[in-house]
Amino acid sequence: MIASYEMKHQVPYYECDATGHQTLAMLFRLLILASEDHSDALGVGTAKIKEYDGGWVIINYAGDVDRLPRENETVTIKTYVEAYNRFFVVRTFEVYDADGKQLVKVKGMFAFMNLTTRKVASIPEPLIVPYQSEESRRLPKVARPQLMANDLAWERLDYRVRFFDIDLNNHVNNAVYFDWLLDPLGGEFLRHHRLVNLKMKYDHEVRAGEKVDSQFIKIEEKNQIITHHQIQCQGKIAAEAEFEWKLV
Amino acid sequence: MIASYEMKHQVPYYECDATGHQTLAMLFRLLILASEDHSDALGVGTAKIKEYDGGWVIINYAGDVDRLPRENETVTIKTYVEAYNRFFVVRTFEVYDADGKQLVKVKGMFAFMNLTTRKVASIPEPLIVPYQSEESRRLPKVARPQLMANDLAWERLDYRVRFFDIDLNNHVNNAVYFDWLLDPLGGEFLRHHRLVNLKMKYDHEVRAGEKVDSQFIKIEEKNQIITHHQIQCQGKIAAEAEFEWKLV
Repeated sequence: MIASYEMKHQVPYYECDATGHQTLAMLFRLLILASEDHSDALGVGTAKIKEYDGGWVIINYAGDVDRLPRENETVTIKTYVEAYNRFFVVRTFEVYDADGKQLVKVKGMFAFMNLTTRKVASIPEPLIVPYQSEESRRLPKVARPQLMANDLAWERLDYRVRFFDIDLNNHVNNAVYFDWLLDPLGGEFLRHHRLVNLKMKYDHEVRAGEKVDSQFIKIEEKNQIITHHQIQCQGKIAAEAEFEWKLV
Repeated sequence: MIASYEMKHQVPYYECDATGHQTLAMLFRLLILASEDHSDALGVGTAKIKEYDGGWVIINYAGDVDRLPRENETVTIKTYVEAYNRFFVVRTFEVYDADGKQLVKVKGMFAFMNLTTRKVASIPEPLIVPYQSEESRRLPKVARPQLMANDLAWERLDYRVRFFDIDLNNHVNNAVYFDWLLDPLGGEFLRHHRLVNLKMKYDHEVRAGEKVDSQFIKIEEKNQIITHHQIQCQGKIAAEAEFEWKLV
């Protein structure tokens, strides 16, 4: 049986935006906290994987959102390693309200990185066995955002990396990208739409002192509202995303 | 005896900066959370004061920092209303580590605002009596930052208000100012100095869609390192601050 981990969390006011819902950036910080607590509980946390000179890096996320948690609500975050192969792990995250209703379900594809070579390395067996997941020949799919042509009419805003965007690893924390992705959509859009599906892919790290360009295209057709996003840094794509929205 | 309130809090990784310490913005979000929980526990929380068409607004903060909480540390936040008069409340916040050592002590001066007129109003007695504090003729002093001349060689950076800086009250959350104030000092300074004293004063609200200019002057003399700060918005001073630092 797969080892799973549950964490309860009450949402304070400062995790919420002007609509009274938890921000996506905060939700992902919490999901990662749950996965770290899970790994610690199994004895394969950061300290242990540093013995192997390694660390987990996120490749992409995909999932559905029924609604984001609200201010003061207590939610339960459940996470487990659904499957893995020699190089990758698919971790599932589920968020439930107090009545046990599922609010969010997201999968993330993680790779094991050798911290010296900064390259993906094969996962040491002692670091993966405790999750009691099965090694897979075919990993479950974690959908990726559709790549859009550069010659479309992207709208864009630029962001200077701030000191408080940088974490202990000395690069921009993965959650910060969600603020950069969503902010250019503007308050009017963000107040009147709720996210129902997300696909997010990380391509290149962004570091202190750099500037990023966050671009999006909005596509509305057949009752579907989709926004496509790219974050560029130093002429390279740093992240891509695709969000589906419903009117509220 | 003054009614005081205590809240325990474990500091997750995402409340910390690249030095592994809780950011000042996060610390102040927590202090306000503690004061709101305190007021709720006494039956004079946001819901109750809305019956009087009012709300508390922060005028200024001042206090000492021995050190900021570290990642994973569990701290206790204690808060109480030290004194009040017809218009103002002085609330004290203390942060302790697990051994009971005081890490931070900050006082804040709050005014009661009428939400319709947007002006300071006299504090309704039923909203202040539960704190079991004494009405004072002379309120304890909450030090203000020294105002510096505009013709000095201020260094500056500008910040566009982001959607996620805005809270449920539809203006920039008070904690966001700390990120704006500190970020221009730069990573090199912030990694090698620790805050020991702070004075912060709020002058004008900043709203969605506005841009602010964060300026500072650094003064080093007689083993003292002081930075003076101003945030300007639409040609008006929105906030001032004075921070004292020690080399680390």
